[in-house]
Amino acid sequence: MNLRIPGPTPVPAAVAQAGAADMINHRGPEFAAIIRRTTAGAQQVFQTKNAVLTLTASGSGGMEAAVVNHVAPGERVLVVTIGVFGQRFLDIVRSYGAEPVELAFEFGSAADPALIDDALKANPDIRTVLITHNETSTGTTNVYLPQVSEIVHRHDALMIVDAISSLSSIPVLTDEWDLDVVISGSQKGWMTAPGLTFVSVSDRAWARQETNPMPRFYFDLRRAQSALERGETPWTPALSLFFQLDKALEMMLAEGLEAIYERHHRLARMTRDGIRALGLELLAGEGLESDTVTAVKIPEGVDGSKFTKVAREEFGTVFAGGQGPLRGKIFRFGHLGHVHEEDIRAGLVAVEKTLVSLGYAVANRA
Amino acid sequence: MNLRIPGPTPVPAAVAQAGAADMINHRGPEFAAIIRRTTAGAQQVFQTKNAVLTLTASGSGGMEAAVVNHVAPGERVLVVTIGVFGQRFLDIVRSYGAEPVELAFEFGSAADPALIDDALKANPDIRTVLITHNETSTGTTNVYLPQVSEIVHRHDALMIVDAISSLSSIPVLTDEWDLDVVISGSQKGWMTAPGLTFVSVSDRAWARQETNPMPRFYFDLRRAQSALERGETPWTPALSLFFQLDKALEMMLAEGLEAIYERHHRLARMTRDGIRALGLELLAGEGLESDTVTAVKIPEGVDGSKFTKVAREEFGTVFAGGQGPLRGKIFRFGHLGHVHEEDIRAGLVAVEKTLVSLGYAVANRA
Repeated sequence: MNLRIPGPTPVPAAVAQAGAADMINHRGPEFAAIIRRTTAGAQQVFQTKNAVLTLTASGSGGMEAAVVNHVAPGERVLVVTIGVFGQRFLDIVRSYGAEPVELAFEFGSAADPALIDDALKANPDIRTVLITHNETSTGTTNVYLPQVSEIVHRHDALMIVDAISSLSSIPVLTDEWDLDVVISGSQKGWMTAPGLTFVSVSDRAWARQETNPMPRFYFDLRRAQSALERGETPWTPALSLFFQLDKALEMMLAEGLEAIYERHHRLARMTRDGIRALGLELLAGEGLESDTVTAVKIPEGVDGSKFTKVAREEFGTVFAGGQGPLRGKIFRFGHLGHVHEEDIRAGLVAVEKTLVSLGYAVANRA
Repeated sequence: MNLRIPGPTPVPAAVAQAGAADMINHRGPEFAAIIRRTTAGAQQVFQTKNAVLTLTASGSGGMEAAVVNHVAPGERVLVVTIGVFGQRFLDIVRSYGAEPVELAFEFGSAADPALIDDALKANPDIRTVLITHNETSTGTTNVYLPQVSEIVHRHDALMIVDAISSLSSIPVLTDEWDLDVVISGSQKGWMTAPGLTFVSVSDRAWARQETNPMPRFYFDLRRAQSALERGETPWTPALSLFFQLDKALEMMLAEGLEAIYERHHRLARMTRDGIRALGLELLAGEGLESDTVTAVKIPEGVDGSKFTKVAREEFGTVFAGGQGPLRGKIFRFGHLGHVHEEDIRAGLVAVEKTLVSLGYAVANRA
């Protein structure tokens, strides 16, 4: 099977095997060495000197950690949404009794910094902004993140960024862009099985935690930081995933971040070119296309609800469908993590064959 | 290394390798088949017809799930403690703004059902009781759990049980004992790497969840149940751990629960006999000794703070030390999961050699 979803992504054989190593004591010197190494590696990938905490949970757990540690009950926060994962922030904020002010942009577009500025001017009580860097549901990158960060800080607010499906594949310059809290997840560009999430914390964010009355325990980042200082985690960590991450980081740092970004950009362009050559349209606006996942509009006359099933069953390729209001209207082609030209070529062939099988006249292509 | 801690436990080679299988889509038919199979298997191990939800988190995450789904902010709850993990329930309950009434029993003793009855009579407003089945920190089993459950339900309260280090190794009859919420964790008798926790939910507990205003998102069990009905999890699951669990359950059910219980009981007795033959004393009271972990008092004249380091560095065996007030006063010998006679024999030899190395006159033994 060619796994072409935007995560979980294929795990390289050496990483998968690293996870099968003998179990160890999570309160002993071997684990202390591993978590110190993976934390230093994660900081390099985050391009930050801030703390980076690795929690045993999926990315949504990392998003919850970002909310419960920094947002207070009843607090009004600005949630900038450009797709389904932005809406997940809304959902978490509401679940915890805070009050989101939503600034929604059309699916496929990026957040407009000027409108964020307006929203913060109109709501001077807002001290926290939550935003998605790369919207997995629409294949769109919020390319103006550095400008947004500048505006958010001008308004003295905290900048919380879901970079789950970008960080490690697309440049996220945590320190240079002055991002307070950034979240990523092992099953994306990190080439590791799902189950670990990363959360970086700036000094501004630590200060916020000190006085934040929101209840938290498992996802309490201060507990995670204090355990990390002893080379531990507060609760038993997913050790086999740490073994994998350790190996994956070794491979990533050997390839080099710039080379990784370049490979993702090149393969994304190859995907987009191939998709357009089939006469298909992308959901993301021009210049906003994500380098980790491409969202493709299902062409007229094709039954979108059958696309992923036919691609999987007849052509051995697993694509993701649309989520929420996009169900049946798009398919998503993942190209992040351990991915190479042949995966993209095979994926494009599967797209074409699937469309033909569903009655699309590919001969009409541009 | 002979890993003789009470979890994470050694993962059998076939289980470890299962975790290295190719990554799959967590929203596809392969995963639906796996989670349906592992859920049915987990229900067999829990001996229940209740829902059993498998969450991507460590056991402490399962404990938090039990609290946030069933305990309301400000609610007074009874927390019965016989060691450090009972105190973790206290900590979680307090973190979420509920009010614990602690009924503490001396470390090494079991909870006395009559005193629980008294506590519930004295606090007729209490509707929730939290208790540890097998206290990992003291090597003690709360053997009167069925009687406690009868009393708790007579007082119309909900019975929440941390069975993390017992269930799958020691009989826990969820339905027969009428336990409302029971928690276990993959890294114990389940022979799987850490990172999955199991929570069973009775009808009484579901009803409580319906009206419980406590904020929750990642650990919301209703979301987990609703996703499970589609063969999914609400958030990306730790797939490689599900692959392992699937294989481990196959092995466990092939061995048979009765045979597993018998093996654990036999190896625990072998451990206790060997420990006593060295002239050492157990922390647990007679008849309360856990069949998954033995807590051994450090004999007089031996520097307890050095025990685990010497055992590991000189004799290739990893024991656990004491936690909290027991630090330096005991060591703990785990005998659960994928464990066999030779592991116990080797562990006992390591105990003896370590004590001799620390100046203990084993010749004096009884």
